[in-house]
Amino acid sequence: VVRYEWVSFLTDYGLADGFVAACHGVIGRIAPEVRVLDVTHQVPAYAVRRGAMVLAQTVPYLPPAVHLAVVDPGVGTDRHGVVVVARDGVLVGPDNGLLVPAAEALGGVLRAYEVSSSGYRLPLVSTTFHGRDVFAPVAAHLALGVAPEEFGPPVDIQRLPKPWKSVTAGVLEAEVLGVDHFGSVQLAASADDLTAAGLVAGTPVLVAEVPGVVARTFGDVAPGALLVLVDSMGKVGVAVNRGSAAALLGDVERVRILRV
Amino acid sequence: VVRYEWVSFLTDYGLADGFVAACHGVIGRIAPEVRVLDVTHQVPAYAVRRGAMVLAQTVPYLPPAVHLAVVDPGVGTDRHGVVVVARDGVLVGPDNGLLVPAAEALGGVLRAYEVSSSGYRLPLVSTTFHGRDVFAPVAAHLALGVAPEEFGPPVDIQRLPKPWKSVTAGVLEAEVLGVDHFGSVQLAASADDLTAAGLVAGTPVLVAEVPGVVARTFGDVAPGALLVLVDSMGKVGVAVNRGSAAALLGDVERVRILRV
Amino acid sequence: VVRYEWVSFLTDYGLADGFVAACHGVIGRIAPEVRVLDVTHQVPAYAVRRGAMVLAQTVPYLPPAVHLAVVDPGVGTDRHGVVVVARDGVLVGPDNGLLVPAAEALGGVLRAYEVSSSGYRLPLVSTTFHGRDVFAPVAAHLALGVAPEEFGPPVDIQRLPKPWKSVTAGVLEAEVLGVDHFGSVQLAASADDLTAAGLVAGTPVLVAEVPGVVARTFGDVAPGALLVLVDSMGKVGVAVNRGSAAALLGDVERVRILRV
Repeated sequence: VVRYEWVSFLTDYGLADGFVAACHGVIGRIAPEVRVLDVTHQVPAYAVRRGAMVLAQTVPYLPPAVHLAVVDPGVGTDRHGVVVVARDGVLVGPDNGLLVPAAEALGGVLRAYEVSSSGYRLPLVSTTFHGRDVFAPVAAHLALGVAPEEFGPPVDIQRLPKPWKSVTAGVLEAEVLGVDHFGSVQLAASADDLTAAGLVAGTPVLVAEVPGVVARTFGDVAPGALLVLVDSMGKVGVAVNRGSAAALLGDVERVRILRV
Repeated sequence: VVRYEWVSFLTDYGLADGFVAACHGVIGRIAPEVRVLDVTHQVPAYAVRRGAMVLAQTVPYLPPAVHLAVVDPGVGTDRHGVVVVARDGVLVGPDNGLLVPAAEALGGVLRAYEVSSSGYRLPLVSTTFHGRDVFAPVAAHLALGVAPEEFGPPVDIQRLPKPWKSVTAGVLEAEVLGVDHFGSVQLAASADDLTAAGLVAGTPVLVAEVPGVVARTFGDVAPGALLVLVDSMGKVGVAVNRGSAAALLGDVERVRILRV
Repeated sequence: VVRYEWVSFLTDYGLADGFVAACHGVIGRIAPEVRVLDVTHQVPAYAVRRGAMVLAQTVPYLPPAVHLAVVDPGVGTDRHGVVVVARDGVLVGPDNGLLVPAAEALGGVLRAYEVSSSGYRLPLVSTTFHGRDVFAPVAAHLALGVAPEEFGPPVDIQRLPKPWKSVTAGVLEAEVLGVDHFGSVQLAASADDLTAAGLVAGTPVLVAEVPGVVARTFGDVAPGALLVLVDSMGKVGVAVNRGSAAALLGDVERVRILRV
């Protein structure tokens, strides 16, 4: 029997209502010894891919845990819930791709099971709040050692489309994975892609017409200047020292970095 | 002696200052074994009724607890603090009606006591921060098993006015209880009221001039479409699938649902 | 060996990304028994002085703890990390003045050590996220009882400039320390300064042209009226009963209170 002391918890519920607290409470009632570690509850509403990225980039730093994540535009439709067993943890949430990048960051998907057994949910299941009524109870029971296959039959899980990127000599173009609190823009490209494009530290670049430089960290450029760097998750980031790259670049879906 | 392992905690303090943390700290110093479960600290400033609704709709899902709640426009006036004993828990906060709906959700008010004993507060009590100086210490002592009547004499508690509603054939009109993070508008009406008005699933309706339909859940209508449903708390809600009903209806105090 | 059960945690990371959670996770992996108490993560980005004030005003109410604080505009430059030993606790973060007011609130700075030993950080240290890779591991090891001098050689710490104030008969002028969630403006002046300026309770005043009165608490004035009071931290505050002084005064760096 595998037990977990921790449940990590990510949603797009925000913190202004009692939604997150109700889920904490449900877990606390079923599994009083478990500790809940909030990843974030400020994923933009319905933003499955953003939630998936934040979860995947956080789980490598967490203790062994059941990872409970709910960003669920399909609640109340025929989408299934899913328990995903990864090498280094187990995940539960809607089967819409949200959990997969985190499972890969935890060593890869080993098996997955539908959440369909009626034995591990609240007595009354609402049509709109499966986080509280279905997924939190499943997470708590997983933490207590209930085996993943107890929740339902094996399933093939949904996956998100792979984010787009293009790497050529002197040009790196890639989809935006997200914008963080400091306005740094994270791209779907790695340190290797940067090197492959010939964009080494010190290279002057244009990023969406804005001049900048490839650098190692914020302090390598003047305050207000734009830099391209490898961020704390190993992704290519566009940032402004003590400022916001997002404010400079606008709300874009792709970013093109051009050597000049 | 009744002891509690949990203190739930709701305020309008926000999370940007150290106010919430100071209260956590005060509880941790007095009752180190207690676990604090944050309900929310983003009740709009001074919005007693909104805080009361969020608390009442969350406590049924929490473990047995002392419920500490502070939304307190009258701090520093002659309003009293109060300990409310409910069938399934005990509550502490200002005596302005904030605690009563939650106490009712916890099986009803059994007794109430003024918070006036000077033995269970911080040595210095500020004129503006009774959450930290008075109510958090009382909550911690309640969790440790101090009897409710130790804090002061019995009192008759303040209650909020009952929210307004009107149910006739084909028309349900009711006060807005609140708007959640997803922009869903919750009304002071129940599933029974919806049935009594003849608004069964599938009925086309007008909500403040906007066409919609009575439905079971979001997925029953197209993205962007308005629906009337029974929400996860058993209340009548107005929502937009993957959108915001509040953005569509504006900042209204009452909503009228009309069968068409 | 001094061990701590609690780590308090303050940053400017916001709650929308997984940054705070990754630090919680790092602490949980190194020191599973430790409890993390979040002070706030909504310090405005890079606002070292604001972070320092919030921390200093909160720590007196916390249990004995390692205080982990990261507001770090200089990350990736040659600024050092520092462990500060105070009489009533130990603090860790960047050496930019952030920790000093809190250390003084905890009985004063006894000793300080550079964070330079490579033995107490994550195997890979990013150039932009020392909270996760350096400071959280140090905090966890401090909590486990590793001695402060193990992290590096003694250092002279950086201090913030003392905030400005001027007290004359009938006039108190002082720098703004911060604006809280309710829009109350806190000044770098104490109750003694107020008395020294002859601004006793009941005195009519002008605050940046707005008429108000020196009062004991919100309820002493009508809703919407401006008051000058001693706030819950013993500082001079400017507030509006059930309103926002900040909205009335605008985004000012200094405030002048004039007896009329």
